[in-house]
Parts: sequence; C-alpha cells; structure tokens
Amino acid sequence: MRFKLTIEYDGGPFQGWQRLPNAPSVQGALEDAVEKLTGVRSEVIGAGRTDSGVHAYAQVAHVDIEKPFEVGRLADALNAHLRPHPIAVSAVAEAAPDFHARFDAKLRAYRYRIRNRRTPLTFERGQMWRVSRALDVDAMQAAAARLVGKHDFTTFRDAHCQAKSPLKTLNVAQVTRNSDEVDCWFEAQSFLHRQVRSMVGTLVEVGLGKMGADGVARILAAADRAQCGPVAPADGLYLARVDY
Amino acid sequence: MRFKLTIEYDGGPFQGWQRLPNAPSVQGALEDAVEKLTGVRSEVIGAGRTDSGVHAYAQVAHVDIEKPFEVGRLADALNAHLRPHPIAVSAVAEAAPDFHARFDAKLRAYRYRIRNRRTPLTFERGQMWRVSRALDVDAMQAAAARLVGKHDFTTFRDAHCQAKSPLKTLNVAQVTRNSDEVDCWFEAQSFLHRQVRSMVGTLVEVGLGKMGADGVARILAAADRAQCGPVAPADGLYLARVDY
Repeated sequence: MRFKLTIEYDGGPFQGWQRLPNAPSVQGALEDAVEKLTGVRSEVIGAGRTDSGVHAYAQVAHVDIEKPFEVGRLADALNAHLRPHPIAVSAVAEAAPDFHARFDAKLRAYRYRIRNRRTPLTFERGQMWRVSRALDVDAMQAAAARLVGKHDFTTFRDAHCQAKSPLKTLNVAQVTRNSDEVDCWFEAQSFLHRQVRSMVGTLVEVGLGKMGADGVARILAAADRAQCGPVAPADGLYLARVDY
Repeated sequence: MRFKLTIEYDGGPFQGWQRLPNAPSVQGALEDAVEKLTGVRSEVIGAGRTDSGVHAYAQVAHVDIEKPFEVGRLADALNAHLRPHPIAVSAVAEAAPDFHARFDAKLRAYRYRIRNRRTPLTFERGQMWRVSRALDVDAMQAAAARLVGKHDFTTFRDAHCQAKSPLKTLNVAQVTRNSDEVDCWFEAQSFLHRQVRSMVGTLVEVGLGKMGADGVARILAAADRAQCGPVAPADGLYLARVDY
C-alpha cells in the first residue's frame, strides 16, 4: 500500500531532506522510523528536497508499506519512532499505487520568516532571519511583484542547481508585515535550487533601500548570477504547502 | 546610575531566574554580562522570579552601573556579552535611584501557550504545552472567569510558596483559541508560587470535560491544595508584561 505523508520538521539539526551516508537527514530519519515500525527498509520520497537547515510545515512524501495500517495509527506509530528528532507526521492518507510526491506536485508554497528588530533572537533562533535595520515592506512588495510570471531565473539560481532549464513560472510573491515580523510567501509549481533564498536576499536589499523594484526587474532580465544580492540564510525558510 | 532593563529569554536551559551557586540561571547570566562589560559585579533584580524552564517576553529588572552609558549602546553591549545564551535585552531606560523592579511593580501579566493537536511539537518544543485531546475553550473561559477577583488561592499555590498570605487579587483571566493554539492570559499585581501553572492545569481539566466552572469555583472556595488538578508544565509559561 502506498501512503501519502504530511510532515512537519525543524531542519536545524539536519543536513537537509536528502539521505546522506554520514550526516543526519530528514529522509533518513523517516526511513529509519518506517524500518523500526515495519521491519522493512522503504524509500520515503519527498516533494521538495529542502536544503540544510530549511524547515517544513507540510512537506509531502510517499512511501510503500506492505503491512496493513489504519492511517491514524500509522501517524502515531511513526511519530513514536521519530523521537527525539524534531520531525512529526501530521497526516497520513492512502494514496494511489502510482502517486508520486515529487513528480505529481502541482504547486509548492514556501514561506520565509524575517524578524525585523534590533534585539537578538531568543525563541526563534534558527527559525527566523533577524534583520536589524528597518525594512520598507511596501518597497519589498513592489519588487516582489516584478518577479511574478514566467522568467529565466538564472540570477536567482544557485551555481549547483541541477535543473535542466532556468525557466520557471512564479505564481505568487507576497511580502507582508505584522508588527516586527516580515513574511514572504512564494508559490510555483517548482523552484530552482536556492531560488527562494536568493529572491528574499535581494528583496531585503530593496527593503533596506539599496535597490528599487526597477533594479530587481533589471537584474532578473540580466539572467546573471553575479547580480544577485546576498542569499538569505536557511533559518527563515519553510516548505509550507504542496498541492496535487 | 540605576537602569531599568526589559529582558526576553527562553527559560529552557536555565534553573530559573534566580542566581544559584552551581546551576545556570537567567539572573546569573545577566550579572556575568554586566560584569564583563563594566568590570564590576552588580546585582540584577527582576520583577518576577520565574521558575526553571519558564520564559519571559518582557521580564523587567533593575541594575546599578556606575560607568556612564548611552541607553541604546548599553542594550547592544549587554546583548553582545550575553551570547550564546537565549537571553536578550530588548530595552534599557534610565531609572530613578529608588526604582525597584520587584517592589514597585503594579501589575504582572503571564501568558500560557497550549498547542491543541495530536501531532507532536517540532518548532515549539519546550515553548508550548501540547494537549492532544480537543479542548472546549468556551468551558475553560467560563471557569477562568470564576477565578477573577480577590480570593484565598491556597488551592492553586505550591507547597513551597513563601508568600505571607494566600490572598491575591486576580484582575484578568482569559482563554482564547486561534486555530489549534489555545492561549491563557492572567493579570494580577502578584501571584503565588506556581499559581498560573496550577490554574492552567485545572482549566485544561475543564477543557477536557472532567470538571465544570462550578467545580472550579468549589475547589477555589475549599482552599485546599489537594483539590488542585495537575500542574501545567513550565514549557508554555511566559512572563509577558510588568507595569509600574
């Protein structure tokens, strides 16, 4: 039986989603939990291969488990075996035998959390990016709007990105403020490697007055990685939703 | 010069606010930072002596520092010396020479954060209390209202409480829900030891249907510690505001 898992995790202690031979990974921890539960090693395939330190509110993955399980019980049992990792299975559903968490995803949403204050972080350490100087969120939103649409996103693409094409369609890019929290939200069917953190880094440059919306449109059109601003840290990034 | 400090901290790594000879404390970490900065050991006196594992959004303390400091620079300098502790000075103000953070406090507000969901915590581990079964927040609010006013709070007082009298006036007791987060908020000039956690533990019993508002009024009137429900864990408790 193929199951669809929805998974929340604090990426802090992990070298990313992807299983690695000698480093902690979210995928590896999940596969260990499945093996402890069933006695059988099964690959857990996720919708997004989040980087080291990147978090998820709702990563989606699929896994084949032969032993019959009631879906509610399967979540509890996996969570018991996931301790003490900061990983929790929040939902389990039966899936079609050909359901593929990665290839069938129609839309991925990422949230990026900024705390805009001078005081160092205490509770949200590793979970937000603190930016000390005041951010102009209206300017950031105006610049974000220039990123929406189908573009060559080479400027916002990591040098190690393995995607065949730098062409992506960004459906949504929104920047909002609630007190001293600045939230960025992006939706697309798929993203290039480090695309969200690259875009956020540049949007923060805009928020600090170092660049305008026209400047962002210009560096996007240049399709030149060298023109990208500093890449935002992993701490603030969350895979927030995957739609099928 | 006497300074008034506003302090945020994650109480997780500490044995509480109060300085202890052989255990980490928030007060001790602050006094160490002051000493590193000024070369002189000064006592940092807080408004509330939070217990082991209890947090603060805005603890208030006073400290005497002879070296002249501009208040903005003092916060930054203390924060630099507080690293890597999850303690941050969010505001500094000059205070009258006789200002006393503890004795002059007119009102203390505590927040208690509950996550009402079956899924184990990831991001908020140590920072919220997870309650798996559904809580009836209307019932909790109705019961909380019965605690407001001047009462003998012996039922909700820790056996080790050193207060002279169990008589306290609770000004505000509110329980609200936002999605799966249940927030409790209490205001009083002062509280007995473990009073908030004792009240929250009993209010959760009400939320789970084990007791009603009348039951809470009855155990309050009994002034009998043995009738208190389980004490809520430190994880979810925050000293949220101190008014002078």
